[in-house]
Amino acid sequence: MSTFKPTAESIPPSNNNELKLKLPHNLPVNYHPLNPLDFLLRAALIYGTKLAIAHPDVSTPVFYTYSVWAQRVQNLAYALIKAGLKPGDRLAVIAPNVPMMADSLQGALAARVILTAINIRLTPGEVAYILDHSGAKLILIDYEYLHLIKGTRIPVVVSNDTGRSEDPYEQFLSDGRRFSAEKGWPGLEMEADENAPAMLCYTSGTTGRYHLMLTLNSSSLPGTYLAAIANAFEGQMNRESTYLWILPMFHAAGWTFPWANTFAFTTQITMRSVNYPLIWKHLLESRVTHYCGAPTVQIGIVNDPAAKHPPQQIKAYIAGAAPTAHLIGSLEQIGITPIHVYGLTFTYGPFTRSYPQESWSSLSLEERSKLIARQGHSFATAGDTRVVYRAEESPKGPVELVDVPKDGKTMGEIVTRGNIVMKEYFNDPDATKKAFRGGYFGSGDLAVMYPDGSAAVLDRSKDIIISGGENASSLSIEQELASHPHVLEVSVIAREHKKWGERPMAFVILHPQHASKWTGRHEEFAKDLISHARKTLPGFACPEWVQIVPELPKTSTGKILKTELRKVVAKL
Amino acid sequence: MSTFKPTAESIPPSNNNELKLKLPHNLPVNYHPLNPLDFLLRAALIYGTKLAIAHPDVSTPVFYTYSVWAQRVQNLAYALIKAGLKPGDRLAVIAPNVPMMADSLQGALAARVILTAINIRLTPGEVAYILDHSGAKLILIDYEYLHLIKGTRIPVVVSNDTGRSEDPYEQFLSDGRRFSAEKGWPGLEMEADENAPAMLCYTSGTTGRYHLMLTLNSSSLPGTYLAAIANAFEGQMNRESTYLWILPMFHAAGWTFPWANTFAFTTQITMRSVNYPLIWKHLLESRVTHYCGAPTVQIGIVNDPAAKHPPQQIKAYIAGAAPTAHLIGSLEQIGITPIHVYGLTFTYGPFTRSYPQESWSSLSLEERSKLIARQGHSFATAGDTRVVYRAEESPKGPVELVDVPKDGKTMGEIVTRGNIVMKEYFNDPDATKKAFRGGYFGSGDLAVMYPDGSAAVLDRSKDIIISGGENASSLSIEQELASHPHVLEVSVIAREHKKWGERPMAFVILHPQHASKWTGRHEEFAKDLISHARKTLPGFACPEWVQIVPELPKTSTGKILKTELRKVVAKL
Repeated sequence: MSTFKPTAESIPPSNNNELKLKLPHNLPVNYHPLNPLDFLLRAALIYGTKLAIAHPDVSTPVFYTYSVWAQRVQNLAYALIKAGLKPGDRLAVIAPNVPMMADSLQGALAARVILTAINIRLTPGEVAYILDHSGAKLILIDYEYLHLIKGTRIPVVVSNDTGRSEDPYEQFLSDGRRFSAEKGWPGLEMEADENAPAMLCYTSGTTGRYHLMLTLNSSSLPGTYLAAIANAFEGQMNRESTYLWILPMFHAAGWTFPWANTFAFTTQITMRSVNYPLIWKHLLESRVTHYCGAPTVQIGIVNDPAAKHPPQQIKAYIAGAAPTAHLIGSLEQIGITPIHVYGLTFTYGPFTRSYPQESWSSLSLEERSKLIARQGHSFATAGDTRVVYRAEESPKGPVELVDVPKDGKTMGEIVTRGNIVMKEYFNDPDATKKAFRGGYFGSGDLAVMYPDGSAAVLDRSKDIIISGGENASSLSIEQELASHPHVLEVSVIAREHKKWGERPMAFVILHPQHASKWTGRHEEFAKDLISHARKTLPGFACPEWVQIVPELPKTSTGKILKTELRKVVAKL
Repeated sequence: MSTFKPTAESIPPSNNNELKLKLPHNLPVNYHPLNPLDFLLRAALIYGTKLAIAHPDVSTPVFYTYSVWAQRVQNLAYALIKAGLKPGDRLAVIAPNVPMMADSLQGALAARVILTAINIRLTPGEVAYILDHSGAKLILIDYEYLHLIKGTRIPVVVSNDTGRSEDPYEQFLSDGRRFSAEKGWPGLEMEADENAPAMLCYTSGTTGRYHLMLTLNSSSLPGTYLAAIANAFEGQMNRESTYLWILPMFHAAGWTFPWANTFAFTTQITMRSVNYPLIWKHLLESRVTHYCGAPTVQIGIVNDPAAKHPPQQIKAYIAGAAPTAHLIGSLEQIGITPIHVYGLTFTYGPFTRSYPQESWSSLSLEERSKLIARQGHSFATAGDTRVVYRAEESPKGPVELVDVPKDGKTMGEIVTRGNIVMKEYFNDPDATKKAFRGGYFGSGDLAVMYPDGSAAVLDRSKDIIISGGENASSLSIEQELASHPHVLEVSVIAREHKKWGERPMAFVILHPQHASKWTGRHEEFAKDLISHARKTLPGFACPEWVQIVPELPKTSTGKILKTELRKVVAKL
């Protein structure tokens, strides 16, 4: 850290460093728009000398205090204004977890432009679609991803991720500083409308087809603000916390953790990629206390050869799919406490949590994990979560939503409403109306409701296996199969069956420690796994076929691409 | 706990216990009013069997789980409606920290009536004034305070604080349950306007004169909601926390801790009075983790003979006056971490905090305490705090506020704006306009701003001592005098002086362990204290007179009544 010097323009003025945006005129004295940018300015005011962003694993590591980081964010805001972006215009960012990405999530709010963070794993065609659809006026891009925007006519700023004054991104920021003429934060006006959109998110979903891509204006200011506070509170983040960026910030705006971190005054460590040895280096040596990740990433973490009990307490937010008992046990064994949250890009990331109960402490790991794996209850700042049947749409009235019985069995759709639900589909009022019919946002996830009022997602509606007329939840089957000690990861999909209509087929990655045992004996393993399944699953839910695979197809955010597995099955 | 049975009507229905208010029609899907009552309903849903309210130190102790407590709050709401209260009507409550008081703070929100919690230490005349001014439609009163409302024509419900079915308050609740016809929470409509007032607070201030009493409609729903979240977060309250009610709930709605507690799923212990041995019984035996109190109460706690290091970590919120270094040291010595917050009834209680810095750990207790004693910076959910001169009011334009230099010396008024500032003075638009002139709420507290952006209150404007043309802060003088090892508590006021205009006079309570040393030697003690003061204070700020007193006159909330001391001085 001692050898790194931020650019001269990153250093705030020693005098007159007012950390306040200009307030809109005529704001009532007892009203202040809920704007999550405030958290950064406040952190710079109160903990200016504290390390905010560390980006250590590159050839020119950079380290920014809150004071310096806030100045850089301010420079970015002025640079965007100088580049001609007006409030409401869209700014595209294409980058992994690097400081430029962290800057953008804050700086866009400061310039009142709408950020569109694009998934770096998309194809050039998909990226072109998003750039066009969003109407982006400017692209900030990391040097490694230039191939994604070849030939674009939109102005581009490249970051070489060096933090040095020669870096084009740094020059962009420095120009912004000069353009500001030292008007500072009070030269930027705070957004007065707290329902103004903050981010435009595109979700590729598990279909991976860009023409099916969803566009949504998910993040208005108070939603981001309230979601971030909830995320910070649920993990009890505070000024002694260090957050490791494993989850991509481009994914649903990093589940609002960019602002959960500034709210709680943490230190954030950024990494260019999900690299398990590097993750372990930080978990063991950088006093990391919090991180987020999908189960598949967490599986990679606990199974890495470097895995061992870190000296400090770590809390891991898990979302994206339900964690298995095996994963929960593995995390706890090395001292990592899982916080299972659930959400969608449409809900700013997490909006429910499995809330641990005192009575769970007397349960076996197996039983407890099943409870942890439930999606649970709404956050304090989220609204209402229900599991419902949708009654037939009547041409005269609104769709009626009927709660399923709280029996832990009857499946319905998980729906939600409240302050951390997306604002709208971008430029698509019809789609918005449809998503909100019945007065709730429909998740598309099939779930049951338990007597204690907690919801458990069983499947995406399209992932249900209709086996002999029974609905078999592929997620439930995966949960059971994952408890086989030789299974590292598993995915289950429907496969056509002459007699039963559909039957489950399992794709399994063997645990490296046990894989050699089954070399050349895949059929025997299949029998072993099926007999394991029969112990707990009804016949119609037991896999009919088991295939051992070296890896599973996944989205960039770690979700298993069942569409790809279906293609494999279709050819069988 | 095992022998206590809540009344039959306190038990929620075993089926169909829907923990949701009826939503107003046509609420947007992505909008939910920020209503702090939601926290209780959510706690009852997620932690229904957890102990919410314990009231153990009465002849018939009561213990309510979240599930039962929520039902009682619902019963109260229906009972209020049955009693004819309409949304917006005022409900008066006169009670110490008993379950009825806890119920009222939640139940009023459920019935959409405005709660006026009246200070039990007021005179009957003062109470009559508030009842009349607020236009209260109903009074809930604890049996011990009936003398305060003799002859009132307003309907009254008495609580004998027994929790038993014969208790008139319990009968009121049970009637409410019957009146509800089991329509439950969905039979009560959620307030759609989040700016609807929630509480009407009367502050007696330190003048103690009811005709000078301030009335304010301080608490609208989002303010209460956001202040409660901030209070819970600043102390890192969570579901493993136990909160001891020492601060009266009638004081500024218990600084919003009634909702900080439900937000964080804590257990709350209520006590009828501030009784130090009892406080220590709970600190040592009831796993208390959090409590609030003014410095004078904290002094009583640390100096009680029962004081010793509790087995668990305790965090004590201190507000109402700046804690002295001596007090902070005494708290830390027995394992109680002070959280110094600052606020006024007009700001829902606390809105700033002294935020500890890593660098403080290398400081001496004395130096560190001076920093802790500063009022610090705004909460994340509070708006902006400034220290300003008020420029002359111009007949043409708004009052201009000019920030004092950040030199830690220049005094100005501490002002604030944002979501946790009161809504308005009740029925007094002119007073509201005056309080909000310049676009900020004026606290009336004189403060300085330090280079790090933290504010420190030096005095109420009327408590400044103008000694030889210099402004001497009575608070600063008190801070220094309190560091004398034989001083338990001290208050300093201005006394007329022929030569200097005014000079400080100190009223001192001696520490019980050292009092005997000075028996009959008061003048010598005065000399000793003055020479102690001369070490750090400028001459004009050193007390000219010292008087040893057995006690200091105080408001019911523990603030020292300087007005009473001034009367004493006027007669000298």
